Amino acid sequence: MNASDFRRRGKEMVDYMADYLEGIEGRQVYPDVQPGYLRPLIPATAPQEPDTFEDILQDVEKIIMPGVTHWHSPYFFAYFPTASSYPAMLADMLCGAIGCIGFSWAASPACTELETVMMDWLGKMLQLPEAFLAGEAGEGGGVIQGSASEATLVALLAARTKVTRRLQAASPGLTQGAVLEKLVAYASDQAHSSVERAGLIGGVKLKAIPSDGKFAMRASALQEALERDKAAGLIPFFVVATLGTTSCCSFDNLLEVGPICHEEDIWLHVDAAYAGSAFICPEFRHLLNGVEFADSFNFNPHKWLLVNFDCSAMWVKRRTDLTGAFKLDPVYLKHSHQGSGLITDYRHWQLPLGRRFRSLKMWFVFRMYGVKGLQAYIRKHVQLSHEFEAFVLQDPRFEVCAEVTLGLVCFRLKGSDGLNEALLERINSARKIHLVPCRLRGQFVLRFAICSRKVESGHVRLAWEHIRGLAAELLAAEEGKRDGQSCII
Amino acid sequence: MNASDFRRRGKEMVDYMADYLEGIEGRQVYPDVQPGYLRPLIPATAPQEPDTFEDILQDVEKIIMPGVTHWHSPYFFAYFPTASSYPAMLADMLCGAIGCIGFSWAASPACTELETVMMDWLGKMLQLPEAFLAGEAGEGGGVIQGSASEATLVALLAARTKVTRRLQAASPGLTQGAVLEKLVAYASDQAHSSVERAGLIGGVKLKAIPSDGKFAMRASALQEALERDKAAGLIPFFVVATLGTTSCCSFDNLLEVGPICHEEDIWLHVDAAYAGSAFICPEFRHLLNGVEFADSFNFNPHKWLLVNFDCSAMWVKRRTDLTGAFKLDPVYLKHSHQGSGLITDYRHWQLPLGRRFRSLKMWFVFRMYGVKGLQAYIRKHVQLSHEFEAFVLQDPRFEVCAEVTLGLVCFRLKGSDGLNEALLERINSARKIHLVPCRLRGQFVLRFAICSRKVESGHVRLAWEHIRGLAAELLAAEEGKRDGQSCII
Ligand SMILES: Cc1ncc(COP(=O)(O)O)c(C=O)c1O
Ligand SMILES: Cc1ncc(COP(=O)(O)O)c(C=O)c1O
Repeated sequence: MNASDFRRRGKEMVDYMADYLEGIEGRQVYPDVQPGYLRPLIPATAPQEPDTFEDILQDVEKIIMPGVTHWHSPYFFAYFPTASSYPAMLADMLCGAIGCIGFSWAASPACTELETVMMDWLGKMLQLPEAFLAGEAGEGGGVIQGSASEATLVALLAARTKVTRRLQAASPGLTQGAVLEKLVAYASDQAHSSVERAGLIGGVKLKAIPSDGKFAMRASALQEALERDKAAGLIPFFVVATLGTTSCCSFDNLLEVGPICHEEDIWLHVDAAYAGSAFICPEFRHLLNGVEFADSFNFNPHKWLLVNFDCSAMWVKRRTDLTGAFKLDPVYLKHSHQGSGLITDYRHWQLPLGRRFRSLKMWFVFRMYGVKGLQAYIRKHVQLSHEFEAFVLQDPRFEVCAEVTLGLVCFRLKGSDGLNEALLERINSARKIHLVPCRLRGQFVLRFAICSRKVESGHVRLAWEHIRGLAAELLAAEEGKRDGQSCII
Repeated sequence: MNASDFRRRGKEMVDYMADYLEGIEGRQVYPDVQPGYLRPLIPATAPQEPDTFEDILQDVEKIIMPGVTHWHSPYFFAYFPTASSYPAMLADMLCGAIGCIGFSWAASPACTELETVMMDWLGKMLQLPEAFLAGEAGEGGGVIQGSASEATLVALLAARTKVTRRLQAASPGLTQGAVLEKLVAYASDQAHSSVERAGLIGGVKLKAIPSDGKFAMRASALQEALERDKAAGLIPFFVVATLGTTSCCSFDNLLEVGPICHEEDIWLHVDAAYAGSAFICPEFRHLLNGVEFADSFNFNPHKWLLVNFDCSAMWVKRRTDLTGAFKLDPVYLKHSHQGSGLITDYRHWQLPLGRRFRSLKMWFVFRMYGVKGLQAYIRKHVQLSHEFEAFVLQDPRFEVCAEVTLGLVCFRLKGSDGLNEALLERINSARKIHLVPCRLRGQFVLRFAICSRKVESGHVRLAWEHIRGLAAELLAAEEGKRDGQSCII
């Protein structure tokens, strides 16, 4: 395939992309396929001779699309949103053509420098404290990670290195194993599984702090755990506070937790994977209050800020905490500007070595939407979730299970877990909309997340009527079962 | 931007991409910019109102391109290649439009299933032992990681979990800290820095095994280290063998190292990040002999197999070794087919949670090139490096510093490190071609890597003549300095 073939096929692909996204509402949101469906549909080995592009594009419709869960369908209300916008797609195309691997400044200066400035732009949109911005007098700065999971792990590893050095400086004989044995990290019982995993990878204990009635981590519970562990000779070194938990979008109390971490010299990492995007709206910014106490902060523009995956934005207050944890400098990666203090080698900030030119996506999206356009987008989603909440509240058979702050509504039928499991089963089997569940205080709960860029009030209303209809059928059937049973006994 | 705007702008972008790649030879391969060049060129904050696409595309030329290192220029001979092909770009466009996040089977069945089958296709192209393939009777399978660094870390963590469980089963009182303190991982002194970093993250010791005269890890050196460490009460648990080292593309002796690891029950991970792609050619397949002893194997199609970044192919012999190391199952990620044994949830195989539909790139590239097309591509690059080698060998002022097996030539001027540093400085300052150095046995060496999809004999010859010309100037200047000096003394 040469450049002129690519011009032709690339334009066909642009049309295919636009057709797909324009017509997505007409596709069944969740596929019918069974595990193992794909293997029999394609050859067992790669072809020796080239296939044609026509064949491949046909196979996309025949083989791939029937197995796709359509995350951008306006009937997709599962998990959390994953971003999708045309400007981001355009930028990703450009990123693919440039195809540079920006692990160091020299490996592609524009790739590093645009990232630093875009992270400052975004930090300013969120009104992050200046200490986190690279263009300010402080020692902080931002970096694009691949995922919130990686950001949490990087923060934990940096904190681990820092505390280990401090302890070893104080007691020179102390081995790393002996330190690890004593280190404890903390997060609320509502924290994402990636936090537990970071603890596992880092080889440190992770303790779950019981959340309060609003699913928030509070001072008292954290303080209690810290005191108990310190009394037992353990060393608290890392706390993850979540803003917008995965199950129900609750918020840890940063204004309480922050000062404690500060006082105790514990690294505070703030994970706002989903909710962070909302903080660009002044009316939601208060949810971020207390971030001034954090050592690191992270959220995913690839969730809710129209920047396609992957783009997880992480800031630290002291760049050297990250670079000190990871720095290893083989000669083939050295370049002449290194160590000048002027430049950033992002490979020292992340787990992988290679990295794409991901800041192009931020640049295109921020410029083509403008801050106002992005704010309007967030506000619309929050508005839609309140519309759904209102529907649920109007129906006495249902209850809302957690405060609705942003774009997620947790709800359930008043009744047993079994009943709600059966409802979810009916919803997902009908294939009209797609939801996933969670557990809150042991109860089985349905999550309704506003996800698609194209979801409107009409879709939300249809979804609710559909859910209500299935609930009515289910309740009638249950009623019938009970009647039937009483006859037999 | 709506779908019809995207149709228009997307097609303009396709043309821009094609223009860029067609005209790349005319761009200066390495930029002139100084650190900090970009910030003054763009506003300090994101715009409130949208900018136009025209403005952005103009800024790409004005602001971005002057700071880009053009990795796909035929005059780029630095680092290792990073893949770039039109079929991969087309697939990535599709991947962007589908925009699914395939962390579990249910999150998008096609995304998971195509990946499993593509990893089998690729495994068969390499003639990997059946034990590594998912479609065979064994317990193995493949996964796409973001980078070789992540693959090494994942392998190390899986090995760490496995040995920890074994030791704890034998001595129930043993703490994790006590285990970590004793674990030792090994790699040759030529291994990539990502191996050292994996050890650092995993909290285990990593020991460098001295390589032999051909920069290869051999049985005797490894055996010696193992004996010494075991005698000291340490527990060897992990060995990384590198096929195609970063500095000089040397090959650890897998047929020697493999049986030792097998004998000692040590996890053997094979890192063939760059060289792996060559194993699809029968004449290079022997370099992979011994992989049957490995527990995990990894290489980067995103380096040399025309699949754009990121696509790092990793196989394991026992899927459960990975899933057992990471498995954490919150309810909102549960789905009904789970545990049926039929399906794969790739989030248990990797560090991040989210993942793009990266197997589309493999599918498009394998089908549009065909195995023969891919083999021809590899062979051409190897041929070109031998052409460069021949030039160096013909010039008595130069020497080749390591055996040329694939697409990399390590060479230097006979003389001091200072002389070679000066030569590299002249080469990179002239901006006609771009190279990076390495150190071999303490000596400063220049690396000439065949990188671009568009590099031809003519470019290699021009590059050599350019280098030779600069060397002549340099040697004359040195001569002059010495003459000058002798006059003064
Ligand atoms: C609060 C929170 N943290 C972390 C994550 C993990 O995000 P990622 O896929 O970017 O690792 C999620 C995902 O939904 C989340 O909700
Ligand atoms: C032998 C080897 N291993 C690992 C790596 C790291 O690759 P990645 O950027 O995919 O982490 C490289 C990079 O050149 C390499 O040459």
